[in-house]
Amino acid sequence: MLTTNPFDDDKLREECGVFGVFGSPDAAALTALGLHALQHRGQEAAGIVSYDGEDFPAHRASGLVGDIFGSEDVIKSLQGHRAVGHVRYSTAGGKGLRNVQPLFADFAFGGLAIAHNGNLTNALAVRERLVQRGSIFQSTADTETFIHLIATSLYEKIVDRLIDAVRQVEGAYSLVVMTQKKLIGVRDPMGVRPLVLGKLNDSYILSSETVGLDIVGAEFIRDVEPGEIVEITDAGIKSIKPFKPVQSRFCIFEHVYFARPDSIVEGTSVYDVRKNIGHELAMESGVDADVVVPIPDSGVPSALGYAEASGIPFELGIIRNHYVGRTFIEPTDQIRHLGVKLKHNANPGKLKGKRVILVDDSIVRGTTSTKIVDMVRQAGASEVHMRIASPPTINPCFYGVDTPSKEKLMAANHDIESMAKLIGVDSLAFVSIDGLYRATGLEGRNSDNPAFCDACFTGDYPIRLTDHQAENKGRKLTQLVERQSA
Amino acid sequence: MLTTNPFDDDKLREECGVFGVFGSPDAAALTALGLHALQHRGQEAAGIVSYDGEDFPAHRASGLVGDIFGSEDVIKSLQGHRAVGHVRYSTAGGKGLRNVQPLFADFAFGGLAIAHNGNLTNALAVRERLVQRGSIFQSTADTETFIHLIATSLYEKIVDRLIDAVRQVEGAYSLVVMTQKKLIGVRDPMGVRPLVLGKLNDSYILSSETVGLDIVGAEFIRDVEPGEIVEITDAGIKSIKPFKPVQSRFCIFEHVYFARPDSIVEGTSVYDVRKNIGHELAMESGVDADVVVPIPDSGVPSALGYAEASGIPFELGIIRNHYVGRTFIEPTDQIRHLGVKLKHNANPGKLKGKRVILVDDSIVRGTTSTKIVDMVRQAGASEVHMRIASPPTINPCFYGVDTPSKEKLMAANHDIESMAKLIGVDSLAFVSIDGLYRATGLEGRNSDNPAFCDACFTGDYPIRLTDHQAENKGRKLTQLVERQSA
Amino acid sequence: MLTTNPFDDDKLREECGVFGVFGSPDAAALTALGLHALQHRGQEAAGIVSYDGEDFPAHRASGLVGDIFGSEDVIKSLQGHRAVGHVRYSTAGGKGLRNVQPLFADFAFGGLAIAHNGNLTNALAVRERLVQRGSIFQSTADTETFIHLIATSLYEKIVDRLIDAVRQVEGAYSLVVMTQKKLIGVRDPMGVRPLVLGKLNDSYILSSETVGLDIVGAEFIRDVEPGEIVEITDAGIKSIKPFKPVQSRFCIFEHVYFARPDSIVEGTSVYDVRKNIGHELAMESGVDADVVVPIPDSGVPSALGYAEASGIPFELGIIRNHYVGRTFIEPTDQIRHLGVKLKHNANPGKLKGKRVILVDDSIVRGTTSTKIVDMVRQAGASEVHMRIASPPTINPCFYGVDTPSKEKLMAANHDIESMAKLIGVDSLAFVSIDGLYRATGLEGRNSDNPAFCDACFTGDYPIRLTDHQAENKGRKLTQLVERQSA
Amino acid sequence: MLTTNPFDDDKLREECGVFGVFGSPDAAALTALGLHALQHRGQEAAGIVSYDGEDFPAHRASGLVGDIFGSEDVIKSLQGHRAVGHVRYSTAGGKGLRNVQPLFADFAFGGLAIAHNGNLTNALAVRERLVQRGSIFQSTADTETFIHLIATSLYEKIVDRLIDAVRQVEGAYSLVVMTQKKLIGVRDPMGVRPLVLGKLNDSYILSSETVGLDIVGAEFIRDVEPGEIVEITDAGIKSIKPFKPVQSRFCIFEHVYFARPDSIVEGTSVYDVRKNIGHELAMESGVDADVVVPIPDSGVPSALGYAEASGIPFELGIIRNHYVGRTFIEPTDQIRHLGVKLKHNANPGKLKGKRVILVDDSIVRGTTSTKIVDMVRQAGASEVHMRIASPPTINPCFYGVDTPSKEKLMAANHDIESMAKLIGVDSLAFVSIDGLYRATGLEGRNSDNPAFCDACFTGDYPIRLTDHQAENKGRKLTQLVERQSA
Repeated sequence: MLTTNPFDDDKLREECGVFGVFGSPDAAALTALGLHALQHRGQEAAGIVSYDGEDFPAHRASGLVGDIFGSEDVIKSLQGHRAVGHVRYSTAGGKGLRNVQPLFADFAFGGLAIAHNGNLTNALAVRERLVQRGSIFQSTADTETFIHLIATSLYEKIVDRLIDAVRQVEGAYSLVVMTQKKLIGVRDPMGVRPLVLGKLNDSYILSSETVGLDIVGAEFIRDVEPGEIVEITDAGIKSIKPFKPVQSRFCIFEHVYFARPDSIVEGTSVYDVRKNIGHELAMESGVDADVVVPIPDSGVPSALGYAEASGIPFELGIIRNHYVGRTFIEPTDQIRHLGVKLKHNANPGKLKGKRVILVDDSIVRGTTSTKIVDMVRQAGASEVHMRIASPPTINPCFYGVDTPSKEKLMAANHDIESMAKLIGVDSLAFVSIDGLYRATGLEGRNSDNPAFCDACFTGDYPIRLTDHQAENKGRKLTQLVERQSA
Repeated sequence: MLTTNPFDDDKLREECGVFGVFGSPDAAALTALGLHALQHRGQEAAGIVSYDGEDFPAHRASGLVGDIFGSEDVIKSLQGHRAVGHVRYSTAGGKGLRNVQPLFADFAFGGLAIAHNGNLTNALAVRERLVQRGSIFQSTADTETFIHLIATSLYEKIVDRLIDAVRQVEGAYSLVVMTQKKLIGVRDPMGVRPLVLGKLNDSYILSSETVGLDIVGAEFIRDVEPGEIVEITDAGIKSIKPFKPVQSRFCIFEHVYFARPDSIVEGTSVYDVRKNIGHELAMESGVDADVVVPIPDSGVPSALGYAEASGIPFELGIIRNHYVGRTFIEPTDQIRHLGVKLKHNANPGKLKGKRVILVDDSIVRGTTSTKIVDMVRQAGASEVHMRIASPPTINPCFYGVDTPSKEKLMAANHDIESMAKLIGVDSLAFVSIDGLYRATGLEGRNSDNPAFCDACFTGDYPIRLTDHQAENKGRKLTQLVERQSA
Repeated sequence: MLTTNPFDDDKLREECGVFGVFGSPDAAALTALGLHALQHRGQEAAGIVSYDGEDFPAHRASGLVGDIFGSEDVIKSLQGHRAVGHVRYSTAGGKGLRNVQPLFADFAFGGLAIAHNGNLTNALAVRERLVQRGSIFQSTADTETFIHLIATSLYEKIVDRLIDAVRQVEGAYSLVVMTQKKLIGVRDPMGVRPLVLGKLNDSYILSSETVGLDIVGAEFIRDVEPGEIVEITDAGIKSIKPFKPVQSRFCIFEHVYFARPDSIVEGTSVYDVRKNIGHELAMESGVDADVVVPIPDSGVPSALGYAEASGIPFELGIIRNHYVGRTFIEPTDQIRHLGVKLKHNANPGKLKGKRVILVDDSIVRGTTSTKIVDMVRQAGASEVHMRIASPPTINPCFYGVDTPSKEKLMAANHDIESMAKLIGVDSLAFVSIDGLYRATGLEGRNSDNPAFCDACFTGDYPIRLTDHQAENKGRKLTQLVERQSA
Repeated sequence: MLTTNPFDDDKLREECGVFGVFGSPDAAALTALGLHALQHRGQEAAGIVSYDGEDFPAHRASGLVGDIFGSEDVIKSLQGHRAVGHVRYSTAGGKGLRNVQPLFADFAFGGLAIAHNGNLTNALAVRERLVQRGSIFQSTADTETFIHLIATSLYEKIVDRLIDAVRQVEGAYSLVVMTQKKLIGVRDPMGVRPLVLGKLNDSYILSSETVGLDIVGAEFIRDVEPGEIVEITDAGIKSIKPFKPVQSRFCIFEHVYFARPDSIVEGTSVYDVRKNIGHELAMESGVDADVVVPIPDSGVPSALGYAEASGIPFELGIIRNHYVGRTFIEPTDQIRHLGVKLKHNANPGKLKGKRVILVDDSIVRGTTSTKIVDMVRQAGASEVHMRIASPPTINPCFYGVDTPSKEKLMAANHDIESMAKLIGVDSLAFVSIDGLYRATGLEGRNSDNPAFCDACFTGDYPIRLTDHQAENKGRKLTQLVERQSA
């Protein structure tokens, strides 16, 4: 099956984006816009829950934000001055609509909706304890763990119950929580996933990235800090820090690929970091050539940086077709043999007879790289050199990124020379881990106390992998496998 | 809005039918057929959950059984030798798909699916206690109460937990429960709702009515008894009676209208009971006339009985249009004024110049009766007498039947004479409560210890109405109001 | 595939119903209601075209009238004081939506919509001539022939062009035609298919049957006569008779099965004719028995007549399930073996130990009869006699009825004795052709000049079968086979 | 209504793309891929018709190619070695599905399917003549004119009928026609719209652009020439030239915006032309600045050219969100006031304090330009200069491009100075018409005999505008306004 889904892109995928509004009569509309700006963090499904003073109107569906929330009727059905939204790529809990967030529950203290970016690493262990004492899980999503921990907590106040809950979980999480009185933002102690706070007139906004603020013209206030709980009520903002401070470990792949280039994350412009990586690459592994060509769209900033640093002209030697349906044609053998180019096409005038430097952000399985190099050679390139704006990806992520298993990661199974041969390039180079840290403005990686989570490159996992290590030892969950109607 | 939905019929509506199969490779297909035979008990939605030895495949949707389960793909997706199914008209829990049964949950002991016919009268009270200790309800259906009671029970065995649960609830319930090893049938202590046990070769079947057995050619074994738990395993059938025996109070309206005429309920042919009511009516309130005309379809057996006992010819003076869509046209004022006859039409040759006895099963709001009498008069009837095969309906039901509120029940607000005037008939008579009991084979109603639940006619409610009496005193449930996608 | 579609009913099927309104602000709503009353004439698809003074709004879709036209939005989109509608079972032209009527075309003189009940017997021959001279057919329906004949006629006035057209076609047709000024009703010279004229206040109505008038409370004026063109304009009604009068040959099967029992066709009550057939059957082929049982629903009037004439009690020994989805479950071999009863169930108390006379309207393939007899025997009947309210069906219809091919018609391939054996009855009898004519009020069939088309029973085809006789000799039509989206 | 539909982009829109395959067992799959590569030429609907040796399987629907043709079932239903496909933005004939191409008809000589890019300028005049003589039009599309001209031609051979047809029409047309034996490509005498011929192993391909060949790995043979008919049969390719040769007038806007940058049109690389325009702009209207920023995506090549020629650094100062649903949220007044940025966002690090040159391909209404300039100023730009890679657009197109009416074209109603003020820039310049011609490799525009159609810039319309000039004088077409089912 030829698809244009993410893996054909051969990219790692962020699993979620979250957004929340407190105090606007247009809360749901603003949330829909915010989710549209965060669409790159999850294209499979989206949901919004608002609070109208009595009930919690909700709409959750598969598809793109613009399609799901594009009708006036839908937005009008989501009344209220407060709303929380979520986009997802896929979750720890399978594809059924019952796993589409935000999740909601009716508690003794009232209703609560929650949206989660990240992944818990001890969700199964905690779930097992909860089921033993009588909790009924409706989804298979790790996010539901928060709900039952809050429900069964013996504390009285909601925020105390939330603190009680986050103390029992391990993993990465940026949460936006909405209750009948509050909007609450939470980041895990190491701040693996992003979350920012903004203001639009009198209303407050929580968003995974600053682009969610930009689209509605909101002002950026600050990042929610690692380990911080930000509680927003009619009385204003209150900051709670229930954890002992530790070195933060923000996900460095957000800089490499996940975040939008026009976002400012943790104080730094993503576009600038990516151009800087291009500079580093040009310095670390320069090569004599006629033209620098990005693999669009994600390779463009690093390629611009490489061209700038090397003085070699930048050209759009590869054109990308942005009209992507969800799936595409099951090819016959003949068609498969043709090497169909659904997404990229060579721009021959800029490749023929040229020594080409291709710049991409990462290599995951290597499938797309191989096809593109072949296409560039057929277009007449005399040499093809590939430069990658991240170190080799050799380990899976357990903190909210969808990674292929280790045996499918090209760099986990081949050295660089044999990768170059498999991909078909004359030379291949990755930016060094220190080069990558330098591009973010640091002096390199401090291996005693690294400033980022870079486990996918280094194997240094900063948070315990409880479920992963216990795998196949616990009770098997029984599961309802619901057939989708239509 | 002119609709052809049940209330245009001006009938009370049974809320559910249940069905289960143990031990057949065609469990889901048999269940679909059984639900089709029980379709009259609920036309709004249907669901089946099977157990394939590992997971619980499920399909639940709005619509008719034949449409939902009509494709081979759907049936094939419901693998396993065990299945449980449900049709519903509407439930205590609103219309969302999350309320479509069977419900399922993953417990510490494994998975369990449950289908429920009836209505609990203390569901809110029990729910409140459960929420206080940390249970999270996903639906607003009373049936979910069983699931949380089972989950939080301290007993070890499933059946003991189930007994623990049913001891805490009040109300009417016939349940079919499926676990990883068992199929279990349960009736409440008074046996308000029906449930029968059958056998098809080596497999066992539970069904609300015998017509569910007939359609698949299964043999009727016996009724599940009031207060009985029937546990079906590979080892065979085991009967458990956790309650002290009390006088059963089977719903007498099942005989009047709910059950299919070709069902045998509690040992008696429904068709025969209905013809007997016609005999009673002819004796109790005979009138000189030319023709006995049923209001189709439900009035037909009693009209045949009336004609037989009175010697007055039976004729199809009213024809019913069976092609009913879900909804119909919003009429303009002019059209409304025309008195459109979507469902019934006069057969003029049998009415013109005739003294007509119309026979119907019941009068709820009186709206349909009025229209039909008007139509019969326009067709030229010289006299119109109406005979009703049940006593006046003056009280709402709390045990699983959808009743209009008391102020909308015609007989609760008018004496018979004024009803006759409103409906426009020359005479109106209802069968007496004793006549109704006689039609079932008894000698009349023993008011010290009646053999049926007849609260809708007498106001004698045999089971406590805890929630009803506490109404508006408890915590308000917060609720997710999910917009259905497309 | 077990289906509950018409052929499982083993019935012949009328192919269409037509309806039109002139001069009402609710034209489309009235048409929707009229089509609902005519739903038995075609359940596969329906359409309405109105004229709003400028454009011709239209809505045509697959499904039942109540579902297609049930929303206010749809009716509101069909503005105008004039509308024409159509229901169909299937047509000469395949199942695609492009064949759903009414058809419409833009002519030199303006727009025209047409709805057709019947079937042309020289459509292919005429089409071939038209294509040769440059006409482009968009559908494969015979009805489109009228449109091109009108378009290419050299007459100036629309009615003259219409006369020119109907003079060139052979076959059965009742037409309702709408132009920018007129509503026109047409019946073929022999009046094979019905068409009636009614009045509702100031507006005129054309309808296939009187039930289409009843539902909206319109007054019946008269039948459109065979060979008549009724032209309705603001100036009133004008009758045109372009053909030389011939003996009319109304389809006798309309009386047997097609028309609704509450319709008055050609001056006669259908219900009365059917009861009369029961009388004839009792006299022609009486048999000693305990109970007369109709095969519901169509056998009921004849069974009542039989019971009345014979004095043997009438009982509902077979109950029909009216909840029919479009299709049903693909059974496994085991299920098929069970002899599943999707549509009919025995009412055992009225069959056990009894000598039963089953009454049905016709036997086409004999498949359903065989199943029902088997079911009645399993319910304990001691004897089973079958009486059929029509003569043996031995010939296909070419005038608008969907008939199986001759080799599938049971009576075309077996004598009555061997049919009885195949069906499994103790005796089998059909009403005689003369008995059938007597039931309509005549003295019997005048074979020199019969009053009805009875070709399906006698092989006497009153209209030439040009295309049928030329079959496989002409140019093969090329065809677009459009895949329906979703 | 905030939409992300084309006009929000403030671009002119090409109306169609065409594609055809002769002689491959994968004809439909190849056509789907070709249409995917041509998706930028029409995103509203797509269709494919194949020929399987007997019938013409077809699938046409609204939406994107990847969604419509993404399932194996759909492709398998389009059997045959020959296929023709079409994508469209909108047509002369409204939005109904009956206007989705390819059109098909059954002629005396057999079936024929036709796909058309362009627009006829005398379609109404010809249609009127055809309707007068009895032709029935089913669509309102100008393309149907070809079908009736072919049908009514007195020539015998299909190609002669086609020649007869094209001689009677005026306007722009590139056609792909499929019959039971042939695939035929046609371009109008001036070759306004593109059409190229390619070869893939033994099969021939016709495609609007070379990117349709690239995606399937086919070899480019040559452009179909203006006024040429290319007839492809089993015997190979035959070229027919029925018109007297005239100066070709290829649409110059294909170079500016319509064609994909990786296409080679009329022998020239579109990407190179666009970069050249950037060079011309830098030379014609250079300005001192810090950064050259394209308005993505279409402004990128010209911005690269401008940066290259001027030495001013190129930066991605504006980021485009590619996740576009069909429609988006109806904003409240407050939201409208916020100036929501659904599609573009400022990349602030590259704009703040900078003198910015924005490069875009064209200005149509000016709406988007105004918003983007405002966004760039808010991001802190100290100066904003805008350079446009085409001359001012002051006239509508009648040859297949969707243009706003003249009163909405900004440049038709304002001089450049006042445009600059309205848009809010410090300076504004368009490339000159001679500069544009130079960018294509010519020496400038020869006004006696220009090499391109540039009517939108110059008002010099090379083909007669018959219908336009006769507007509102002819008979009004009556029209069926079909409501789409769900």
